[in-house]
Amino acid sequence: MLATQLVTVARKGCSCPARIASRALSSAPVPTLPPTESGLRPPHLLTLADLTVPQIQSLISSAIAFKKHYKSRAIPKAGQIEGAKFEKGDGAVSSEVSEKTLDAKTVALMFSKRSTRTRVASETAIQLLGGHPMFLGSGDIQLGVNESLYDTTRVVSSMVDGIMARVGHHSEVETLAKYSSVPVINALSHLYHPTQILADLQTLLEIRQPFTTDLSSLSGLTIAWVGDSNNILNEMMVTYPRLGVNLQIATPKGYDLDAEVLERANEGIKAEGGKGKIIHTHSPEEAVKNANVITTDTWISMGQEEEAARRIKDFAGYQVTNDLLARGGAAKDATFMHCLPRHKEEVDDEVFYGDKSVVFQEAENRKWTILAVFDAFIGRWKA
Amino acid sequence: MLATQLVTVARKGCSCPARIASRALSSAPVPTLPPTESGLRPPHLLTLADLTVPQIQSLISSAIAFKKHYKSRAIPKAGQIEGAKFEKGDGAVSSEVSEKTLDAKTVALMFSKRSTRTRVASETAIQLLGGHPMFLGSGDIQLGVNESLYDTTRVVSSMVDGIMARVGHHSEVETLAKYSSVPVINALSHLYHPTQILADLQTLLEIRQPFTTDLSSLSGLTIAWVGDSNNILNEMMVTYPRLGVNLQIATPKGYDLDAEVLERANEGIKAEGGKGKIIHTHSPEEAVKNANVITTDTWISMGQEEEAARRIKDFAGYQVTNDLLARGGAAKDATFMHCLPRHKEEVDDEVFYGDKSVVFQEAENRKWTILAVFDAFIGRWKA
Amino acid sequence: MLATQLVTVARKGCSCPARIASRALSSAPVPTLPPTESGLRPPHLLTLADLTVPQIQSLISSAIAFKKHYKSRAIPKAGQIEGAKFEKGDGAVSSEVSEKTLDAKTVALMFSKRSTRTRVASETAIQLLGGHPMFLGSGDIQLGVNESLYDTTRVVSSMVDGIMARVGHHSEVETLAKYSSVPVINALSHLYHPTQILADLQTLLEIRQPFTTDLSSLSGLTIAWVGDSNNILNEMMVTYPRLGVNLQIATPKGYDLDAEVLERANEGIKAEGGKGKIIHTHSPEEAVKNANVITTDTWISMGQEEEAARRIKDFAGYQVTNDLLARGGAAKDATFMHCLPRHKEEVDDEVFYGDKSVVFQEAENRKWTILAVFDAFIGRWKA
Repeated sequence: MLATQLVTVARKGCSCPARIASRALSSAPVPTLPPTESGLRPPHLLTLADLTVPQIQSLISSAIAFKKHYKSRAIPKAGQIEGAKFEKGDGAVSSEVSEKTLDAKTVALMFSKRSTRTRVASETAIQLLGGHPMFLGSGDIQLGVNESLYDTTRVVSSMVDGIMARVGHHSEVETLAKYSSVPVINALSHLYHPTQILADLQTLLEIRQPFTTDLSSLSGLTIAWVGDSNNILNEMMVTYPRLGVNLQIATPKGYDLDAEVLERANEGIKAEGGKGKIIHTHSPEEAVKNANVITTDTWISMGQEEEAARRIKDFAGYQVTNDLLARGGAAKDATFMHCLPRHKEEVDDEVFYGDKSVVFQEAENRKWTILAVFDAFIGRWKA
Repeated sequence: MLATQLVTVARKGCSCPARIASRALSSAPVPTLPPTESGLRPPHLLTLADLTVPQIQSLISSAIAFKKHYKSRAIPKAGQIEGAKFEKGDGAVSSEVSEKTLDAKTVALMFSKRSTRTRVASETAIQLLGGHPMFLGSGDIQLGVNESLYDTTRVVSSMVDGIMARVGHHSEVETLAKYSSVPVINALSHLYHPTQILADLQTLLEIRQPFTTDLSSLSGLTIAWVGDSNNILNEMMVTYPRLGVNLQIATPKGYDLDAEVLERANEGIKAEGGKGKIIHTHSPEEAVKNANVITTDTWISMGQEEEAARRIKDFAGYQVTNDLLARGGAAKDATFMHCLPRHKEEVDDEVFYGDKSVVFQEAENRKWTILAVFDAFIGRWKA
Repeated sequence: MLATQLVTVARKGCSCPARIASRALSSAPVPTLPPTESGLRPPHLLTLADLTVPQIQSLISSAIAFKKHYKSRAIPKAGQIEGAKFEKGDGAVSSEVSEKTLDAKTVALMFSKRSTRTRVASETAIQLLGGHPMFLGSGDIQLGVNESLYDTTRVVSSMVDGIMARVGHHSEVETLAKYSSVPVINALSHLYHPTQILADLQTLLEIRQPFTTDLSSLSGLTIAWVGDSNNILNEMMVTYPRLGVNLQIATPKGYDLDAEVLERANEGIKAEGGKGKIIHTHSPEEAVKNANVITTDTWISMGQEEEAARRIKDFAGYQVTNDLLARGGAAKDATFMHCLPRHKEEVDDEVFYGDKSVVFQEAENRKWTILAVFDAFIGRWKA
């Protein structure tokens, strides 16, 4: 049922020929793609903007069910995690939760950049589903270097059952999705990071609404982002307002929101009647005002080390501290989130290791949400 | 049954003490090898020259059966690929095709050079057979660097169930085979590339003789090679003429055929009564005349980048184009093949992405033929 | 049963707060650890000094049973390895030897240094137990570089079922063990190398006492170490004397025994009433006198290459040769052992490849002992 829905979605998600064509493979030939057996293209997950709210709900319900199932098995003490009420029938899994949908299947993890969390989450999730994770790092495969990205995509996708790709420019994962004969999951691009926000949604439910798995229970929350204008923020923008969650964003001057992403966010809000607001400011204090959740990320991403000095100056006042939260007037019971790895510049020890912080629970949930994504997009997909 | 045959073969293949001894481990000690439990050495696949025609047939029949089996399972539409007639009993698999012969087994992939196709084909094949692929790249293990190749071979082979090795000099894989207590498969050496030609044979059958799996149906075909004198060409030379397939080879002046390989090819033709001819010329036009299949490979192999400029001059006129095929008089329905990765120098977009090209089917068949090899040599082998 | 014992042990092993605290994470915050489900910390194996003699016996009995089981299965000739008498009930495995205790589990292999033997042994052992080995090399994960070791430990251990770590300074693996929510196995630190000495014990039993698996049968043996003062020697010091095995150590002047390790060895001897003696000399001849076993290791460890010239001078006379053994008066039937990789400086070809040498059997036993460790510490552990 879920699989069918997702096929539909993915076609929607991939049906942006203008955006893809403008970036991808400018000098490459555009050969005709062979038809798939079923006549349908495989489903992909490039950003949560491609999914409807019910589909996001389905993945989250599935992730929560998988977590419950596997942790119960590991710890055979009945009732211990019954607190999280799981509604039967609202997810993809229910009674079939333990099915090994990746049995005898291989998922290629094509990672142009080093990764700890996403890689460990993906490999362990694939193993739980009975499949083989094939890690291809930048030393193993260099997308577009020794042969065209088109050729590599055709070849690799003809042999594996699914691809998870961590790329530089988002157009790379779009090209992969356009020409792959198997599902492609975006594990991080310069523009979007869908699996991170799925983990954040699971964590928010566990922390703020432990008695339901219904995302609508998060409606009315206010989430503050204090930091850079990056892929995490973009993914939040195209997702949270549709769920009725407000976003209060502070970025320094010169670090503008991505106009295209903002437009896509507004389209989503309009299409699904989302009630969340997006507010943008250059003041960290304004952003955290009345916020229930404070989130940030490192300002110095991989590959930007040389810019460090300039950025430390630009982000003066952006370190998340208890003093900032008090000054700005964040909610007393605010939750702190961070996608990791963390550096001290963006958040001090007191907050990061303090009572408000749910960063390690958030990291663990990378595994359960990625497991739900693999199960739905790759394990249950039939060509 | 196949396993028994292969044991015999492999001993034949390895019984070239003169050739091995002349190259391997000149300064190393030659300790006595311990006896295997059965008294037999394990079977190896270093080149198809080691196999008889019936054994090659057995592997190809097995590969076709595996492909049919696994693709049917993935796509439950009965009859869809019934076109390829699989004779029961002529292969290694028949009714037991779905047996997981690598269950609980580990195959070491010792790759001194980067690889996409061979690695992905091998890892996915091993997973389908229930085994664990252990990838050891040049950053993980440097053959012969920190300890002797003899020591590494003894140690690794005592712990794994099979070895697939991508090496530089062919003597390295010969040394591995000589001292390993488990089967060794050559995944590419400077001299031979057996798994590529197995994939080419499967592809030729699918394209040119879709109603049989009998390699004798290829007899009388003419295959043109327009390019370098390399391991792919060598493997074709020791294989095709024995099947009655003619080889028309064009290489530039100064790029001679390997004399030792040519001698081995002629020995094979004589021993098995092969009817295929080998014709060598320096004219691409002559090579493609009446050819049913045109094949080439990049002229600039990994590690030869600095020679690129000189080679581009030497290979002037060697780019495969529709104009060359027309000028030389290739068959109208000629098929184009390439082992990938491809560069534009050796074949233009029109041919590579055109109707004649079967390069992506050829690439996918790397998986099914390697699967047949692993199943026969490693999965069904008993010490 | 074993699992329970090991939990106890591991708590003993980790209850050295003074030693850990003095080294670990000096500048890092020390956040409160969350309680585990059971209230118990997971068991770890950092050195055999953490285990009692009966627990070491249990692991060795288990390793021998696993080896017998899997090799019998591979070679279906009943009775062939019945020579090694396996007492039912004295190990962790007995009738349940073939249970796949790592089914659906992932073990992270976090290796800061390159490794062949330990990696191959670990990956193949995990595969036999049904689990997935996730290899994270120094190119994949750099402990303590892009985030604190504490953060990495919390995150990785929340997603995997066990960690095997090859580190530089021993404090790194202590930190991992302190903060990990899953078992941590030391695969080599600057101070200890427990899995190597387990393999050596299995090999000694097989060679010197083939009709029993009882470690007490080794009592009275004399083992000579001719070489560097390193982690292998340290592990021998804290283990052998407790089993009644004597150690005769020769190191050059300036290469002193580690005082802390020696103290720990003496504590162990006292606590368990061990009858083995530790004798230290600077004379290789004295060390090998009456020795039943001669062992050494390369003097030029990874990362010390620049010191090579000085060390070759310091270790003059330390090469193990038949002449040294005769001159010193080693037992006629002495056994030679080496953990590999081997260089010619520390042992010549005649000894290394000669009748006395059991180095390849010793290497293979890395697999069976590591398998026993994974089974006991990770596979049978319940949080």
